[in-house]
Amino acid sequence: MSYMLDEIRQQPDVIAEVVSHERRGAEALAAEIEKRGICFAMMAARATSDHAAIYGKYLLEINNKLPVALADPSVFTLYDSDLKLDRALVVGISQSGQAVDVAECLKRSKKTGALTVGITNESGSLITEIADYVILCHAGREHGVAATKTYTSTLGALYLLSACLSHEPSRVDKLLSCADAMRKALDMQDYIADRAERYRYMQEGCVISRGLNYCTALETALKMAETSYVGLTGFSAADFLHGPIAAVHENEACFLCAPPGRAYATMLDMAARLKDRGAEAVTLSSEDEILRLATTPFKLDVHLDEELTPLVYIIPGQLLAYHLAVARGYDPDRPRGLSKVTITR
Amino acid sequence: MSYMLDEIRQQPDVIAEVVSHERRGAEALAAEIEKRGICFAMMAARATSDHAAIYGKYLLEINNKLPVALADPSVFTLYDSDLKLDRALVVGISQSGQAVDVAECLKRSKKTGALTVGITNESGSLITEIADYVILCHAGREHGVAATKTYTSTLGALYLLSACLSHEPSRVDKLLSCADAMRKALDMQDYIADRAERYRYMQEGCVISRGLNYCTALETALKMAETSYVGLTGFSAADFLHGPIAAVHENEACFLCAPPGRAYATMLDMAARLKDRGAEAVTLSSEDEILRLATTPFKLDVHLDEELTPLVYIIPGQLLAYHLAVARGYDPDRPRGLSKVTITR
Repeated sequence: MSYMLDEIRQQPDVIAEVVSHERRGAEALAAEIEKRGICFAMMAARATSDHAAIYGKYLLEINNKLPVALADPSVFTLYDSDLKLDRALVVGISQSGQAVDVAECLKRSKKTGALTVGITNESGSLITEIADYVILCHAGREHGVAATKTYTSTLGALYLLSACLSHEPSRVDKLLSCADAMRKALDMQDYIADRAERYRYMQEGCVISRGLNYCTALETALKMAETSYVGLTGFSAADFLHGPIAAVHENEACFLCAPPGRAYATMLDMAARLKDRGAEAVTLSSEDEILRLATTPFKLDVHLDEELTPLVYIIPGQLLAYHLAVARGYDPDRPRGLSKVTITR
Repeated sequence: MSYMLDEIRQQPDVIAEVVSHERRGAEALAAEIEKRGICFAMMAARATSDHAAIYGKYLLEINNKLPVALADPSVFTLYDSDLKLDRALVVGISQSGQAVDVAECLKRSKKTGALTVGITNESGSLITEIADYVILCHAGREHGVAATKTYTSTLGALYLLSACLSHEPSRVDKLLSCADAMRKALDMQDYIADRAERYRYMQEGCVISRGLNYCTALETALKMAETSYVGLTGFSAADFLHGPIAAVHENEACFLCAPPGRAYATMLDMAARLKDRGAEAVTLSSEDEILRLATTPFKLDVHLDEELTPLVYIIPGQLLAYHLAVARGYDPDRPRGLSKVTITR
């Protein structure tokens, strides 16, 4: 079996691992955040980990009222700035724990008095040596070059931190129960493998979502770009209406991620507009109303809190990236021009 | 003459207007920021204004050590979160001043105790009624649907604020003198009009820069998408190496914005990698070393501080967006499917 497919399928089990091993640590970290009078957070990450950071930003802002900045690591690494961070929580995310620029952010932030946290899948890695606190992802070794289970386990780790900060243990139970919804998403595999054929010759396209699932749009687009070499771009629906929609042409593939929740109404509006333009909409949702507007409906029959949907709605995207690569004659485990760990300075 | 072209050509004169009318106000705002013990900033904006906000983030972080978060307006408008912002400066940017979601961010932030600022081209507009402080862009009425002079004047306004905060009046003089470099960029018009022909049938591509000019990559890509309906995506070079580079195919158009400065070395490395992959590099720089690696060199013979290059390096991108639209048979003043003011809730 392919590493990537195998690792996609392990995801429901990984969530329980994160919770059982990291709950106590996340509680201690939450207590420290309260004690230190932290007034904002900054997250440093690249690529897939950056998409997880975007999820973390929405979660901490919506559930914990804590404003979150996404770090541009070059501010530290190229421009040598020492930001004022003595009232900040700085979270560095790197699945390998070896991202040099993320490590540099943590190191400099710590020096200026920030409370630092590393989220990584590798104990003993570079960022674990620097950060004050560490949350491990417990995803097991990831062989696939396209990160999958380390992504969802990072989302789980961020959710756990948010739940501990809000003193709502019931949210931790909800996190555990989303493993069932993840299994339902995995059940879509045969259907997705069949539908992927249709996109054998797709040359471009976009992935659109909004709000809590903006990260899902970005991550789905990146997975397909990594494994299938197709120039897909992820968008927030709100931004998409401010310009890029003008470039959508007839038959262009637009992937929509539209779970029920606060962002759903915008997605429904987007689906109608794309239909008017004659675009090809591939829509992932539990809702028949929006699926009826799709060229290719991906029905995901699960019902869970919107804040947990990113852990589940990414799975059909990962499966599509895998099967699209296969349909196009590529090996998803060996993307051309990429290595597992990318070093940016 | 086309509105868009006319407005592109007005840009050098607009900078002096911003400085002469807004310098005193920016100084008063800077004094208030210091007095209030502000520990971080948040910027709310969409599309072109969001690209200006990204420039503001780099400037304030590099020159003023002030961490900056980019607001996701949906956190306020969809998810009803009341962020803790009593130690924050919140900057809302909207050229029309009518962006409902940006106004909502300002309104809610003010209620939770933030110091609020509106940056807009329209006095008396919605956001000027809400914000504690206002910086006007003084660009004059903009008729073109694709924002050009309101973009550079917003960059000027943000630069002015950063210069006042750092108590460096010499930086204000430098801002004024970059009008000369902007005129040199305008002199490239005939060359760009000629070269635009080559991209008549371009179907996709990317625009890459890094650091202070990440905003230039995003804005150049958006201008071309708006006027020429070509699916171009803007990238940070650092992110590009983490995935999207795998999707670059032979002859793919890659636009590189590479002024001398701290980000230049990464761009030079990127140019070499793209050449290895057989991509078509359209490179904008003053440096012959990187221009020699290009398929189509855009030589911009100006020398100025890296922090001011975004005001100048966007101009060839705007001109290319204009001439590309003409070469493809479109009217740059009437982009299909877009209106001047986009309302997102």
